[in-house]
Amino acid sequence: MQMEKGIDKIVMTLRVMLLDKPGNFGKFASAVGAAGGSLGDIKLVRVGNEYNTRDVTVFADDEAHFRKIREELGKLEGVIVSEVIDPVLELHQGGKIGVRSRVKVDGISVVRKIYTPGVAKVCRVIEADPDLAHRYTAIYNTVAIVTNGTAILGLGDIGPVAGMPVMEGKAALFDTQVGVNGVPILIRSKDPEEIVRTVAAIAPTFGAIQLEDIRAPECFLVEDRLSAMLDIPVLHDDQHGTSVVVLAVLFNIADEVGVKVKDDAVGLIGLGAAGVGIAKLLKAYGVRKLFGTDINPAAAEIFTKHGGTPVSLAEVMASSDIVIATTGKAGLIRKEMVRKGQVILALSNPNPEITVDDARSAGASFAMDGRSVNNALAFPGIFRGALDARARKINNRMLFAAAKAIKACAPPGEMLPSILDRDMHLKVAEAVERAAFETGVAAPRTEEPEEK
Amino acid sequence: MQMEKGIDKIVMTLRVMLLDKPGNFGKFASAVGAAGGSLGDIKLVRVGNEYNTRDVTVFADDEAHFRKIREELGKLEGVIVSEVIDPVLELHQGGKIGVRSRVKVDGISVVRKIYTPGVAKVCRVIEADPDLAHRYTAIYNTVAIVTNGTAILGLGDIGPVAGMPVMEGKAALFDTQVGVNGVPILIRSKDPEEIVRTVAAIAPTFGAIQLEDIRAPECFLVEDRLSAMLDIPVLHDDQHGTSVVVLAVLFNIADEVGVKVKDDAVGLIGLGAAGVGIAKLLKAYGVRKLFGTDINPAAAEIFTKHGGTPVSLAEVMASSDIVIATTGKAGLIRKEMVRKGQVILALSNPNPEITVDDARSAGASFAMDGRSVNNALAFPGIFRGALDARARKINNRMLFAAAKAIKACAPPGEMLPSILDRDMHLKVAEAVERAAFETGVAAPRTEEPEEK
Repeated sequence: MQMEKGIDKIVMTLRVMLLDKPGNFGKFASAVGAAGGSLGDIKLVRVGNEYNTRDVTVFADDEAHFRKIREELGKLEGVIVSEVIDPVLELHQGGKIGVRSRVKVDGISVVRKIYTPGVAKVCRVIEADPDLAHRYTAIYNTVAIVTNGTAILGLGDIGPVAGMPVMEGKAALFDTQVGVNGVPILIRSKDPEEIVRTVAAIAPTFGAIQLEDIRAPECFLVEDRLSAMLDIPVLHDDQHGTSVVVLAVLFNIADEVGVKVKDDAVGLIGLGAAGVGIAKLLKAYGVRKLFGTDINPAAAEIFTKHGGTPVSLAEVMASSDIVIATTGKAGLIRKEMVRKGQVILALSNPNPEITVDDARSAGASFAMDGRSVNNALAFPGIFRGALDARARKINNRMLFAAAKAIKACAPPGEMLPSILDRDMHLKVAEAVERAAFETGVAAPRTEEPEEK
Repeated sequence: MQMEKGIDKIVMTLRVMLLDKPGNFGKFASAVGAAGGSLGDIKLVRVGNEYNTRDVTVFADDEAHFRKIREELGKLEGVIVSEVIDPVLELHQGGKIGVRSRVKVDGISVVRKIYTPGVAKVCRVIEADPDLAHRYTAIYNTVAIVTNGTAILGLGDIGPVAGMPVMEGKAALFDTQVGVNGVPILIRSKDPEEIVRTVAAIAPTFGAIQLEDIRAPECFLVEDRLSAMLDIPVLHDDQHGTSVVVLAVLFNIADEVGVKVKDDAVGLIGLGAAGVGIAKLLKAYGVRKLFGTDINPAAAEIFTKHGGTPVSLAEVMASSDIVIATTGKAGLIRKEMVRKGQVILALSNPNPEITVDDARSAGASFAMDGRSVNNALAFPGIFRGALDARARKINNRMLFAAAKAIKACAPPGEMLPSILDRDMHLKVAEAVERAAFETGVAAPRTEEPEEK
């Protein structure tokens, strides 16, 4: 896995004035270590007469731990912490995305082409042949990232505005990884019908719709209704992005430890959006034995509808060859529940249902947590491919193709590629585009290719 | 006015192979001129053994005229037109805007700050104090540019998708002139209630709403309803952008020819969105005598509601000191209707209700057409100022302030500044921001200023 030391800890940058005498920096560094913190980047900011100023990145387990480290540093002579900079908040100043002109507006004659009166011609050309909107507008390179803020990460219903940083993060990845315009759309409603009506009304603006962090079970209704209504792809990322990455991992695990994805019994712990999304995709892929459990009894009905067999947590653990947990409940799987030889994916972030170490020592043949199972491996390429194909929907064959492409791009010895592997995203896009044509959700075009 | 030669003509670029012999280019240039065309930029593309290839920009009156020029060129020996490039369409390839990451995503640790898991902290910070969305999201630098495509430019109801090039043009100007993110939102509905419901549902995404090219009278209802419902500014540009520029022009005309805007009789020909917007703003500014006319009798009612007196076209012309026409009907005002000393603004594009020459020769003390009366002079600065103030609405005092700032930025001898005068946009923004604070639609903030 692409892990970084301390990657799940909190990160802070301290601006520190250190008395310039031999051994003083060593004393400072030792104090951080003694308090259980670790050091990241250290930058010399200013050399003074008596003091040197450095920006020191410190990793701590949590806020309380960080406060303790600061306290310890406060006891040192010749060390002054003058400022604490939170690099995460720093990076979010002013928002993470912007809408930019692709045209250099450097003269009034340019304005008169991109705006009145010249633009009228482009409008008329599209009015006469609506297909030309593909060529002369940004619509078919633009994806709406739609949320109502009811299930933001593991934080729950924090509202759409507090969810905006996640949507902007997705948009930033869309831009940097595959050159798609991601436009966050925050909807102030918890009524699925209202969400459907709103997205349908603004759909002409976009080439595809990505639903995001809308809570279950409303998310299922919203996706199904919009997919049926619109002639552009609609994809709920929490379900399908996650399920594609899980399928990619299972392909690699199958190679590694010899499980048979279709024949083995798969048990899902947690039947929210991610769990149900995984269930749908695995069932469609051909998995025959699919067990599942959730603390919410209503989830069993949806699971049954998609071909799964609802059982208890104990039964899932007892009867499954492959266990996939997406509950958000740290430590839910106790060591004594683990069956010898079981494959365990405990995907809840930041803290898994069982740690990799515990699962292995309890006899699991393979164990993995959620740190590298990130839907950002899947969604950029899936949408790039669907847009390139001008697909009307994203079907299971396209999702299988994405999973296979992700699987194939994992470096030797790894289960998954890096989120920042652009070549991987392009391979996913190509595979998805081809599958769209093969399954007839996109019509091959006979017209001449677009000029540059 | 900032006019350019041939600016209202159509522009085409011909790729021409010219036999390399003395006088051949002159022959080509003369043929263009003899056919009534004129030449713009000429670029040498390739020097060959026999032929040189040049890209030649040609201005023509219309498509038919351009075809005639091509025919004439076809008759010349030693001249081969190998390609016709439409520079307007060329500029629109792939759309005019893109959503870009403001963060350089150059390592997995950056991804883990802008996306999961790091972004969760930013979400929690905003959940705890929603006001911090101003600082840590792009929301309050983002304006929705909303249309349903029912009144795109002078083209009428061509639908939202065919209207997209105009919306993208506005977004490009937002970015390049004042650094605002303009997000086009195309709504598939002609029902004002549906438009209101849709915009209200997605309003948390934006710091302000710009309504655009929605036909009258629906546009009035949509604006009024949304303004009342939302705590962010809502502005229908066709009404208010235009009216601000007209007011700015009237201020300068008053200086030039001594009309008294408040005391003189103002006559409006055409009571669509622009006419009604002008009526509202002039009435609010203190104009006492306001006459108006429209071919649609229903418009009279709205006009009366805003304090105007509906009369016939002949009566408007007979009784007004200042005439402002926004009908879209070229040549509607005949020379014999013009009263001696009248100020005439015939604003319909591309062809005015009366030409400047005809109005002057008929005795107008001042005449102007719509080429330089562009709402792009007003909207970028108005929204920049409203966003900077975090204003809850845009009121008349803010619009007056914008008009005065535009007026003051006109170069000596001109009635209006250039759309590309960034300093003008900043002055408009400052004036609008100040007026927002003075009128209490924005609360002065006591918190510390944002870092850099």
